[in-house]
Amino acid sequence: MLNIALLGFGVVGSGTAEVLTENERLITARCGEQVNVKYILDLREFPDHPLGNRVVHDIDIILNDPEITLVAEMMGGSHPAYEFTAAALSAGKHVVTSNKEVVATFGVELLALARQHHVRYLFEASVGGGIPIIRPMQTDLASNEIIAVSGILNGTTNFILTKMKNEGAEFATVLKEAQAKGYAEANPTADVEGIDAARKIVILAALAYGVLLDPKTIPTLGITGITGLHTATAQKLGCAVKLIGHTERINGKIYAGVSPYLVPASNPISHVDDVYNGILVDTNMLGRALFYGAGAGKLPTASAVVADIIDILSHRAEERRLPDWRSATAEDVAERGEYACRRCYVIAGCPKCAEKARTLLGGESYISVEDGKYAIVSRVMRENEAEAALADSGLELLTCLPVLD
Amino acid sequence: MLNIALLGFGVVGSGTAEVLTENERLITARCGEQVNVKYILDLREFPDHPLGNRVVHDIDIILNDPEITLVAEMMGGSHPAYEFTAAALSAGKHVVTSNKEVVATFGVELLALARQHHVRYLFEASVGGGIPIIRPMQTDLASNEIIAVSGILNGTTNFILTKMKNEGAEFATVLKEAQAKGYAEANPTADVEGIDAARKIVILAALAYGVLLDPKTIPTLGITGITGLHTATAQKLGCAVKLIGHTERINGKIYAGVSPYLVPASNPISHVDDVYNGILVDTNMLGRALFYGAGAGKLPTASAVVADIIDILSHRAEERRLPDWRSATAEDVAERGEYACRRCYVIAGCPKCAEKARTLLGGESYISVEDGKYAIVSRVMRENEAEAALADSGLELLTCLPVLD
Repeated sequence: MLNIALLGFGVVGSGTAEVLTENERLITARCGEQVNVKYILDLREFPDHPLGNRVVHDIDIILNDPEITLVAEMMGGSHPAYEFTAAALSAGKHVVTSNKEVVATFGVELLALARQHHVRYLFEASVGGGIPIIRPMQTDLASNEIIAVSGILNGTTNFILTKMKNEGAEFATVLKEAQAKGYAEANPTADVEGIDAARKIVILAALAYGVLLDPKTIPTLGITGITGLHTATAQKLGCAVKLIGHTERINGKIYAGVSPYLVPASNPISHVDDVYNGILVDTNMLGRALFYGAGAGKLPTASAVVADIIDILSHRAEERRLPDWRSATAEDVAERGEYACRRCYVIAGCPKCAEKARTLLGGESYISVEDGKYAIVSRVMRENEAEAALADSGLELLTCLPVLD
Repeated sequence: MLNIALLGFGVVGSGTAEVLTENERLITARCGEQVNVKYILDLREFPDHPLGNRVVHDIDIILNDPEITLVAEMMGGSHPAYEFTAAALSAGKHVVTSNKEVVATFGVELLALARQHHVRYLFEASVGGGIPIIRPMQTDLASNEIIAVSGILNGTTNFILTKMKNEGAEFATVLKEAQAKGYAEANPTADVEGIDAARKIVILAALAYGVLLDPKTIPTLGITGITGLHTATAQKLGCAVKLIGHTERINGKIYAGVSPYLVPASNPISHVDDVYNGILVDTNMLGRALFYGAGAGKLPTASAVVADIIDILSHRAEERRLPDWRSATAEDVAERGEYACRRCYVIAGCPKCAEKARTLLGGESYISVEDGKYAIVSRVMRENEAEAALADSGLELLTCLPVLD
């Protein structure tokens, strides 16, 4: 019997218990022994749950029990999740987590702590919910240099953008509907402002480049400013508006940011709709690979937590190499101004103005979006180059979105 | 220095050498030591290649060299690839391969041999080219029961079907163009008749269910019979025609087969176009996950071979569990007649005939494809049920394709 403890018995925690129960037979076969949830740490009691008698309120009971070799942290938030994780690793226990905030903020330190205590710290569930992405990037793509990673990393905002596209509705209307359906939280800030996606893209950037950026400092723009004009422009250009976390190397430095993009239909990520997530990894040998699936939700996320549990318990005799991350310094980070891409500008005016904008932006053509509004897709350029080109042009700029090619 | 041998120096073999050279720095870091191609086994000489001096013509030189701990087999075809693989495993050498024919035919025996000699036999490159799928199914999806796997597993046929869709061209025309471009071989039988896809779907079925079916005996239909009428019907229904390898469990038995399907736009696999492959895995906890990327080609396939090399060499001190497959017996296999799905029938006649067919097939509606031709999508039913329903109806049946929901 392999004894584990669950920290947090909310959505993902109770989902993890459900996956362990539902798929017990195959999990036992894969681990070689039965996996037993000996403790559940939560502030609440769950008297009606079959595992209600496993609930404890004191982390030390778990830390001091030598039978516990693995702890699954699914508390959410930084504190006390970070402190409990550090304590568990220091006590020589493996830790798996779905907590992107802790990984994105304290990943360097916790991986070092795990290494020091000869245990593992796995976090497949922290990005893309149940979608396999963390482990494939470390193993299947290990033969490749990662050129860039671009992901739809937040299901709530993707649901909202998909609705806006399909129904021509405005952001505020769709947000209310998403909240009513439970797809968006009462306080949707972390989702709609791109904060959740920022945490996830810094984790993916660290996997790609070994350097963990501070998610609070990367350029982060959410979808609250997306309007019907953006959606209409996208449609005219055969694109979809998607909230994208993007990272790439620029002259040896690392750029990471979150922004709404126009994504052309030729990019497979443009077809990732509704609450689904999709992560496109650009590599130097394989080319592009897309990983698609349920990026959130109880059982999908729990399925990734349990995959990590199985990985550790089925190789428990071995010491495995952990990713070696370091914290970013100012020299590591490419500024927003250094990032070059095509951008779609919408201007107000006449065809003459549109032609002028097209010339200034090095675009191939302009198209009419609606009466007196024209869209121009620029050549690949930096934002400040584009701004300089348009300065003093007298053109009335309405919107600008980067294009994900 | 970690010495390895490459068997076969064709497209994938020379690609593997290229990946090892191009990404040498990161591969060395991941393996902990430099990887050195000590031997290349091929019938030919490569005097102008930088590694030309590594070419040998006698497998025994490799088998008898204790410095060689790993052999990468990329010869293609069953023989002598199978014999050389068996000999290498028996000599205590790890083997990685891109050879789907060998894995699909001799996988059970070779995995047992590897287990017996405490070495590993990995085959990530055998399905989906460079797309991570074999390892994710064994690790990331290990917490899930696999309900079904459906894949676009052959790039050549997907290129042809995409062209037929976009240009309204007929099969023979597009095949010629694909051959001229090098996307299809002079003898395209293995691709266009679905034989290549059949090998790949039995490998995926074995990963899902632990039982290896004989690829020669599963229902296999290629795309040579696909006409403009199929393409037009698909378009009318908002679907794409795709050659799909599909496996699922039916009443405890395993069904696996290859056939052209109509794939609705709501299924993410419908957007996998051109030479790309996409594999959709249906699971009981995560739901659906799609893996997408370059399913063939020199560097993509080689990138998967090298990922397997890194996996083995970076964990060389450990003994790892290998998949435990057994060969299918007659009782394991669900017959084609047991497989139920929606099917799209096109009939010739009048609206009255179409309404009659709709009733018999339990469809929701019928649509006009072109003058005097109507399409009806049946309810979920077995093929023989549908045939029985239509027997003696007097309806003139033109085409039938299963639908991948």
